[in-house]
Amino acid sequence: MKKKSKISDAVIRRLPIYHRFLNDVINKGIVRISSSELGDLTGFTASQIRQDLHNFGGFGQQGYGYNAVELRDKLSEILGLNYTYDSVVIGAGHLGSAIARYKGFRQSGFIIKALFDVDKNIVGNKVDDVPILDMADIVSYINENNISVVVITTPKAAVDDVLNKILQCKIKGIWNFAPVDIVLTDKSILIENVKLNDSLLKLSYYLKEKEEEDK
Amino acid sequence: MKKKSKISDAVIRRLPIYHRFLNDVINKGIVRISSSELGDLTGFTASQIRQDLHNFGGFGQQGYGYNAVELRDKLSEILGLNYTYDSVVIGAGHLGSAIARYKGFRQSGFIIKALFDVDKNIVGNKVDDVPILDMADIVSYINENNISVVVITTPKAAVDDVLNKILQCKIKGIWNFAPVDIVLTDKSILIENVKLNDSLLKLSYYLKEKEEEDK
Repeated sequence: MKKKSKISDAVIRRLPIYHRFLNDVINKGIVRISSSELGDLTGFTASQIRQDLHNFGGFGQQGYGYNAVELRDKLSEILGLNYTYDSVVIGAGHLGSAIARYKGFRQSGFIIKALFDVDKNIVGNKVDDVPILDMADIVSYINENNISVVVITTPKAAVDDVLNKILQCKIKGIWNFAPVDIVLTDKSILIENVKLNDSLLKLSYYLKEKEEEDK
Repeated sequence: MKKKSKISDAVIRRLPIYHRFLNDVINKGIVRISSSELGDLTGFTASQIRQDLHNFGGFGQQGYGYNAVELRDKLSEILGLNYTYDSVVIGAGHLGSAIARYKGFRQSGFIIKALFDVDKNIVGNKVDDVPILDMADIVSYINENNISVVVITTPKAAVDDVLNKILQCKIKGIWNFAPVDIVLTDKSILIENVKLNDSLLKLSYYLKEKEEEDK
């Protein structure tokens, strides 16, 4: 493929946001949208949006705005939504079950084939149609089913054991919800650490600032 | 209080990360830590860390590093961890239950007093010690119990109805997991939108980039 210059992480973080708001306007029947209108919706400036999209080649026509469906479809392609990844969720507690059940992940191309847990009392159960399997079998399952993405929802203490197992397999990515940053020396495996607690501490900071301002 | 200059959102996003890694080193019995060592752990540069901390006044001593416990405690204070917020979770499905059960949120000062749901079949049940109450009663419950933070874990379609109810009350913050950005005209209410799907699309983008590189 064509050699591309590296796109910054900040740009990549904004693309899903544009994509989401474009889906919303398309659902409302809107056909064309300007960068300023998209800016009003997303909170970014029009020039930021034009610059971000410019990284991926020409979109829209000066003064005419973007065709919403075309731009959304192009963003889908950039975001890799035309690929699908067979995935498993490790940890079949409430969070793992919520993830297995949420339809939005399937729309993003992540197909959850199984949950894994160490708790023999729930192994054999299902979450909707997704079976809960024994954590002892995960290595052979991943290898035999070409699983490429692993979602981790275990407690922090279990993460080392989980990594010991899944790093024996040829996986491509990890979506980590455990409250610990996973950093691997093997950079060929992509990791997205969700860090829910950091999000909560950010809220905590702003709440405290407000308490002190209001004093 | 002392008038402070506004700290950028990027700095605020890094503070919880420093805080988390400091807790880890303290648990390992480490007493002093340099900005380079903290940099190696967190992936930020030593100079970035020094600059971030400088926003909040002097820490550490040139050449001696930081006292880990002192720095952690100071960050706790900056992050508002000495405040507590009585909170409720709206939506008692898997995600809401996972949040009600997770002990880390209590450590961050968010005390979950109740879950709310529209499903009469689960109203009256408990998640650990936390009762599931009827969504019809939420306005009076928030007012009578001085609830200041609301966690939303409902489907997207329910969010408008949830906001109609909770904006009748004097709440201070919203932690939103529903797959929609909440933006309010009333800027006195702080909102943290979690956007799990954006996180997944970011992973999708990098996986696709890798697929294309490997071709």
